[in-house]
Amino acid sequence: MNQFRVAILGVTGAVGQEFITLLEERNFPVSELRPLASAKSAGSKIRFRGQDIVIQEAREDSFKDMDIVLSSAGGSVSKRLVPHAVKAGALVVDNTSAFRMDPEVPLVIPEINPEDIALNKGIIANPNCSTIIMLVPLFPLHRVAKIKRIVVSTYQSASGAGAKAMKELEDQTRDILEGRQPRKEVFPHQIAFNLFSHNSAVDAETGYCEEETKMVKETKKIFHDSEIEVFPTTVRVPVMRAHSESIYVELERALSEDEIRKILGKAEGLQIVDDRKANHFPMPIEASGQDDILVGRIRVNKSRPKEIAMFVSGDQIRKGAALNAVQIAERWAGSAAVKTS
Amino acid sequence: MNQFRVAILGVTGAVGQEFITLLEERNFPVSELRPLASAKSAGSKIRFRGQDIVIQEAREDSFKDMDIVLSSAGGSVSKRLVPHAVKAGALVVDNTSAFRMDPEVPLVIPEINPEDIALNKGIIANPNCSTIIMLVPLFPLHRVAKIKRIVVSTYQSASGAGAKAMKELEDQTRDILEGRQPRKEVFPHQIAFNLFSHNSAVDAETGYCEEETKMVKETKKIFHDSEIEVFPTTVRVPVMRAHSESIYVELERALSEDEIRKILGKAEGLQIVDDRKANHFPMPIEASGQDDILVGRIRVNKSRPKEIAMFVSGDQIRKGAALNAVQIAERWAGSAAVKTS
Repeated sequence: MNQFRVAILGVTGAVGQEFITLLEERNFPVSELRPLASAKSAGSKIRFRGQDIVIQEAREDSFKDMDIVLSSAGGSVSKRLVPHAVKAGALVVDNTSAFRMDPEVPLVIPEINPEDIALNKGIIANPNCSTIIMLVPLFPLHRVAKIKRIVVSTYQSASGAGAKAMKELEDQTRDILEGRQPRKEVFPHQIAFNLFSHNSAVDAETGYCEEETKMVKETKKIFHDSEIEVFPTTVRVPVMRAHSESIYVELERALSEDEIRKILGKAEGLQIVDDRKANHFPMPIEASGQDDILVGRIRVNKSRPKEIAMFVSGDQIRKGAALNAVQIAERWAGSAAVKTS
Repeated sequence: MNQFRVAILGVTGAVGQEFITLLEERNFPVSELRPLASAKSAGSKIRFRGQDIVIQEAREDSFKDMDIVLSSAGGSVSKRLVPHAVKAGALVVDNTSAFRMDPEVPLVIPEINPEDIALNKGIIANPNCSTIIMLVPLFPLHRVAKIKRIVVSTYQSASGAGAKAMKELEDQTRDILEGRQPRKEVFPHQIAFNLFSHNSAVDAETGYCEEETKMVKETKKIFHDSEIEVFPTTVRVPVMRAHSESIYVELERALSEDEIRKILGKAEGLQIVDDRKANHFPMPIEASGQDDILVGRIRVNKSRPKEIAMFVSGDQIRKGAALNAVQIAERWAGSAAVKTS
């Protein structure tokens, strides 16, 4: 089997750390690992397959001889460095929003549009976490009954804002329990024992925040369906690392609850957790650390049989970010291996 | 001004405690206060207007000479004791679900259907907290543009399950921060750093939990509109005492965002918190302890101008329970005072 030289851009972040875990767990054919981060972290070490590897500063010339770059160092770093990685000949799977809407860049969820991987010109974009967690369970239904529109409300974890935000949730919670004033550094509002509209900039005209605009635009691109309507309300909740979403969908043709369960039961990347008797449905603590998106509260609106609801939870760092990117790299590597063998 | 002899049934609970605070704060004309609770709490004291008053055991004969009973001791206690309070001549404002759907019992939110108060035959029911917090901001829009349907996802605080549930959220959080296994007593699932579908029984056939069924049925009754459709998804979040709701509404005629703001700006019982530039919208920590429901994220769906969205937060113990009940009692007392003067 072909081996690949893999660079990780932003290796010290929550997603960067998860890249390491996943490459080990999934036995990705890595012949060389090059961990890259800001100058601040350069010189410290990360552990990979029992070896300590020194983190290098991410610079324009950091990508020489790399086959694959897994990138998650923020949009501005990606914009600056990813073109150099491409020029050096690497395939970049970029986890930021920098290139997602670029018509030259495929935006891929492997369970949905793996065929788009082949269209890449050096960059494949990884979708926004909320988009991935919403679309993995919706696509199998879209394929058989065509989704006309989605109304979605999210319950997004701290991890979506990175490792520092997770620490802030923990610190603030401790401060409050011990009677101290909680300090705000990452989030604009207190996250402990609170919730707030997503902390991305809100468009003064439309009232949508950037997180919501991503869900609208990325869904159209991934589904190759410019007609599909998405109306999202994105909310940050005091949960550590899994996002949940309350999803309401209008289909072109009616599906029964049994049909929905049958379709989702056969689908990749998800698991049905829908026990009405035990009141057991998707929960972030059960989704955390899992590869699968958990799907439950499956209901058909009896007075409008073409409309259905579900509640989902998915690990934001895994399927919402690092896992999806590694799965893209695996598919690409599989086809690259075929070509070169 | 007339004075009233007031009994509080379930005085040791979260809502019972808030009744005391509100009667003091709002200067309710109380000539005698009779605190009632289970045998377990009988004999201990509560403080009211600078005096210690001994809690009595709530029994069938506890209501002699009372004018008003504020009741919040759970549905089964209400079913057993409220009829005796009515027989003893008191007006009962009942905060449980025991009588809400009884056609003989008015179900009242004073900002919406105060005229129903006069129809009482001894009992006035206080609606479910999620229903109140949803309907106070929706009714002013319903009056001018008729709401055809509501799709709502809730973010409900621990307080909705009582004082013990709030304690459980605190204890579990502390356990997790200190590396101990969190204990579950009140909620079926871990609430700290987690969320789950509402902890009321789920109907095996429809898939709705009781909390959702309440929102559907109570909305029709309070609005006197059997046609209005409500599709709720109710979720418990690790927040202490204010519920939030992401509300999507279809109107019979289009309203602009400016019109919505104008209508809501003049409405009673709510406050608009909708600062797109500052990313400042309703949050449970700001709604806690407030009488008003906070309303924001007001958006019209550009591709469907009859459809609008908003995000609301309201104190579950205040307007969601105790305050609404006291406001009902105030309105009733006002008209009773007129009649007797």
